[in-house]
Amino acid sequence: MTNDYTVQGFKAGAVVAGLKKNGALDLALIVSDRKAAVAGVFTTNKVRAAPVILSEKHVENGKARAIIANAGNANACTGDPGLNDARRTADLVSRELGINPEDVLVASTGVIGEYLDMDLIAGAIPGLTKALTPDAVPLAAQAIMTTDSFPKISSFVGRAGEHAYRIIGIAKGAGMIMPDMATMLCFILSDININSDDLKRALLSSVETTFNRISVDGDTSTNDTVLAMANGLAGNKDLHGEDYDIFAEGLRNVMWDLARMIVRDGEGATKLVSVEVKNAFSPSDALMAVKTVANSSLVKTALYGQDPNWGRIMAALGRAEIEMREDRVDIWIGDAQIVAGGLGMGAEAEKLAAEIMTLKEFSLTVDLHQGEYHERMFTCDLTHEYVTINADYRT
Amino acid sequence: MTNDYTVQGFKAGAVVAGLKKNGALDLALIVSDRKAAVAGVFTTNKVRAAPVILSEKHVENGKARAIIANAGNANACTGDPGLNDARRTADLVSRELGINPEDVLVASTGVIGEYLDMDLIAGAIPGLTKALTPDAVPLAAQAIMTTDSFPKISSFVGRAGEHAYRIIGIAKGAGMIMPDMATMLCFILSDININSDDLKRALLSSVETTFNRISVDGDTSTNDTVLAMANGLAGNKDLHGEDYDIFAEGLRNVMWDLARMIVRDGEGATKLVSVEVKNAFSPSDALMAVKTVANSSLVKTALYGQDPNWGRIMAALGRAEIEMREDRVDIWIGDAQIVAGGLGMGAEAEKLAAEIMTLKEFSLTVDLHQGEYHERMFTCDLTHEYVTINADYRT
Repeated sequence: MTNDYTVQGFKAGAVVAGLKKNGALDLALIVSDRKAAVAGVFTTNKVRAAPVILSEKHVENGKARAIIANAGNANACTGDPGLNDARRTADLVSRELGINPEDVLVASTGVIGEYLDMDLIAGAIPGLTKALTPDAVPLAAQAIMTTDSFPKISSFVGRAGEHAYRIIGIAKGAGMIMPDMATMLCFILSDININSDDLKRALLSSVETTFNRISVDGDTSTNDTVLAMANGLAGNKDLHGEDYDIFAEGLRNVMWDLARMIVRDGEGATKLVSVEVKNAFSPSDALMAVKTVANSSLVKTALYGQDPNWGRIMAALGRAEIEMREDRVDIWIGDAQIVAGGLGMGAEAEKLAAEIMTLKEFSLTVDLHQGEYHERMFTCDLTHEYVTINADYRT
Repeated sequence: MTNDYTVQGFKAGAVVAGLKKNGALDLALIVSDRKAAVAGVFTTNKVRAAPVILSEKHVENGKARAIIANAGNANACTGDPGLNDARRTADLVSRELGINPEDVLVASTGVIGEYLDMDLIAGAIPGLTKALTPDAVPLAAQAIMTTDSFPKISSFVGRAGEHAYRIIGIAKGAGMIMPDMATMLCFILSDININSDDLKRALLSSVETTFNRISVDGDTSTNDTVLAMANGLAGNKDLHGEDYDIFAEGLRNVMWDLARMIVRDGEGATKLVSVEVKNAFSPSDALMAVKTVANSSLVKTALYGQDPNWGRIMAALGRAEIEMREDRVDIWIGDAQIVAGGLGMGAEAEKLAAEIMTLKEFSLTVDLHQGEYHERMFTCDLTHEYVTINADYRT
């Protein structure tokens, strides 16, 4: 039995270890049949979860065999005992699989500040390794969910010379999402033959234009981890030139796909909005402008209310600490222009915009007319449900 | 008839001009019998409402006679026509009172991007000037409300030498509140004799430690205005030394009082929380830390949920771009310590903290143990009601 989400030489498995209170799948394992090139990107938060500290060390040599990930407990703010738990998790997997502990990467997501129940994890690992099959990657995507409402998975098929290869990505994340590593967890598997330096280069540039360009609530997690493994079984020779570019673009597409799923699944979100800023004075102005608009609580509640309340967009731009002149600003919702030269275009234009805002996905475009730099970011609306989820999450 | 909120030489009035849709008071006038020293602080937003542009010009010479303020329409993002409307409002008041237009300050609050209905304003001003009485300052406080649930007023009685004087402050503001001029509107009246330079100095330092230390939703208004008028009728001589200090402290107390009322009245807020950061590495670190915690959506929803979810506080500190070591951080809710050296203190401590969080007002204290700098900021929780108010505000 296979499905669309298999990559040669990779197996996955997922079990109920008992870490999630609702009895759902909560422990996932992904294993490459042979040593794979590996690259990782980790949270920029100065408070770093134990598995982040450990996995960052384990990817250093550019090689890995396995990823074990749990949901329900972040193993963050747990000090030395937490680090020991992360290490012990890697050890348990390495012993069960007969591989080096340094080749096991660990990731956790869930509540901060509680110690992992290592009895549950130790008890579950033998069954987990027995459950490994080539077609269980989607189950792994399910097991790493926390407040996610759906598992996130995407794939790409490419060709390097005569050799076809695949890229499969899974991700989880719905809250604590913001620029600077939005995903809490994302794992990429490929059978392409690529050295770990090139893999890292492709991964870093993709993170920058995908996960670092989405926002749900402006918070950054202590556990954000993106890992990519490539085991080389596709059999292609050294990847360079156009072949590298195609792979990098394929990787970016998979990550972009996952990033959009995360925003669409933003806690309580009902709208997926692409915020675009055009013609900013500088690259950093473009980024600041797009971030400030995409993170404004007042803009996000107006998106929820399907209200083309452009005054809030103007106010957000005005506090973004960018070069701007109010009387140069144009604003569109979809293709309906609502502001020209800093002034509203009237009730008819806003009626059109309000209709577009009833859609589940639309764009919000700002033209600053100050320069030539553009940026784009995906955001979602701020809803009653967001408050419900986050006021009740732990209790 | 008098009440506690009179200052000699000042009269106020408020009428229903028809700018608010609900038929409430929406136009207020405050007049000093004689020229008063004046000082103003205005929004740092680069998008500046017309009345802000005009009033900033009118306070330049340090003298003024009147403040006219409307609610229901911000006269922001209205370009030259908006500026003309603000000027015409000042002109109408000046003609009715027989004073210079330059001595009239204008303030507006409400929806952005709509033109003022000048017929309504012109029609209301004659009645408004007739309504002027010494005891109507509380009515003015009512007239400038928008989403506020109660009028905000505070007073101070001081003595300079043998001369008693009073300070009365009114304010409005409940949303679009954040550091860098939190109040949308605040007017301070005093009969003290003070030159406008000293008045400005006292006002600036008070704004910094009061309105710039509160946060409701991280947004900054286009209309924020703090105006102080002092008409000298108390008869004191030049204010210096201890007399100045007492006045400055009195002014600060009034503004602090109003600032706290604004947070307590934060849109949908059910909690008033004093966030304190101790022993930061630098003054800017202290401020960044306190701002990041006080503005975090995840922290604010946890306050609403009465959940001492300290992991979210740690995560906010970790992304605040400050000098910090996770293993040095202590955290308290009220006097219940929940984190020591970056680690949770367990269920008993959290139970105590959760009990404190059922109160309407409490403190959240972080000790970074990195240096010697402290900061404090008042914030509120993020609630379902906030979303309701802001998703429905305009439509």
